[in-house]
Amino acid sequence: MKFKRYDKAFNYSYSFGQFPTIELIKSGKAKINALILHEKLVIDEDIKNIITLAKDKNAEIITNSKLIESISGKDNCYLVGVFEKYAEQIDNNKNQVVLVNPSDAGNLGTIIRTMLGFGYENLAIIDEVHNSVDIFNPKVIRASMGAVFKIKFEYFKSFEEYEIKNKSIKFAFCLHTNNGLQNLKIENINHSLVFGNEATGLSDKIINQCTGIKILQSKSIDSFNLSIAVGVSLYEFSKNIYKI
Amino acid sequence: MKFKRYDKAFNYSYSFGQFPTIELIKSGKAKINALILHEKLVIDEDIKNIITLAKDKNAEIITNSKLIESISGKDNCYLVGVFEKYAEQIDNNKNQVVLVNPSDAGNLGTIIRTMLGFGYENLAIIDEVHNSVDIFNPKVIRASMGAVFKIKFEYFKSFEEYEIKNKSIKFAFCLHTNNGLQNLKIENINHSLVFGNEATGLSDKIINQCTGIKILQSKSIDSFNLSIAVGVSLYEFSKNIYKI
Repeated sequence: MKFKRYDKAFNYSYSFGQFPTIELIKSGKAKINALILHEKLVIDEDIKNIITLAKDKNAEIITNSKLIESISGKDNCYLVGVFEKYAEQIDNNKNQVVLVNPSDAGNLGTIIRTMLGFGYENLAIIDEVHNSVDIFNPKVIRASMGAVFKIKFEYFKSFEEYEIKNKSIKFAFCLHTNNGLQNLKIENINHSLVFGNEATGLSDKIINQCTGIKILQSKSIDSFNLSIAVGVSLYEFSKNIYKI
Repeated sequence: MKFKRYDKAFNYSYSFGQFPTIELIKSGKAKINALILHEKLVIDEDIKNIITLAKDKNAEIITNSKLIESISGKDNCYLVGVFEKYAEQIDNNKNQVVLVNPSDAGNLGTIIRTMLGFGYENLAIIDEVHNSVDIFNPKVIRASMGAVFKIKFEYFKSFEEYEIKNKSIKFAFCLHTNNGLQNLKIENINHSLVFGNEATGLSDKIINQCTGIKILQSKSIDSFNLSIAVGVSLYEFSKNIYKI
């Protein structure tokens, strides 16, 4: 097998770094084609276990530092997993995060890590524009610190397609509403939290199908970064879960 | 004047893009050496005003698309401000964010934008390691969307040096404490919120001088991304400000 720099069109992708690669293999979700080791990789117990697990699943074990540098473009990456992309279905009975046309890989990874931290394990991506960020982009995997292998995700072509399957109460985060997140009394109900694209936000059509919420803010900024908006919202909505 | 790719050692820096450059010039905080315009820049009323303001302050106005591409490394940047770095002092009577040895430029920019959104306008950076991220790095300016020019910042060599000047109640965000942010009754008192480095967190020495707080989270992740931890904390601490 010949490995090249990642492209969205590939049916496989890469996990760069020890942490995401360990999560990839432990998750058991993907077929592992290969593990590529850098000569500088320190083979501790964790790494030994991962290599054994990968071998058991017929992955090729390759030691090739130059190959790692050429596909990762980094000089501090010592372990790469090569895995086949997979599709999943989200659990319709659980609380969900819904991202409409997300475009930034770093944001998506950070959001997935944050979801897992606040106990949200189901992510719907509405790809109306056929140009949303690819969840298997190595930048997403890296920013998520491997959390992408611990949640479930599902792509939908439209919000309507998502709605047919998901009957939970939907909250849309937008700027033009009087409902402040800070003032909201949040009940412990099954919910979906819906966020728009980094630059263009949510369409009125989607907002009208949900309860609008705004994170109250000073007038000195236009809006919060998407990952911050998601983080703050999940924090507030999950509060009754993480009481001591 | 000859312009090169940014280096921390320069006594000047760049704002890349219209939004940050407009904020730079409106702020009046820095001496503007030059405005560099791309041939594709659309000269609307906002841009006209900015050019007039810059000219009034003796900035050189240069139209040179290739120069922009060579110093910004981007092909979608149409306006660059060249400005002299400046030092400020934070306001000791206001609520503050304190970052100890922050290392990631994108995180710092996002944090500054978030601070401004939640009404925090004073940032202390404790640079114990002499290697903290440079607030004038163009990546910080860009990620902040120009918010860096709307807050006050001050560098300190140690937490002790900061403490001598700042007598507010200090809260340190760390993993080993029983105080959950989600459970905290937050009083409306003058406070400083202290966060450690992305990888290494805060030292016990600093934690012991503050009240420890933990953002309660699931065991599925090690910790939150720094910008998310700051965002969630500022949201909670500023809640009584942003009631409707």
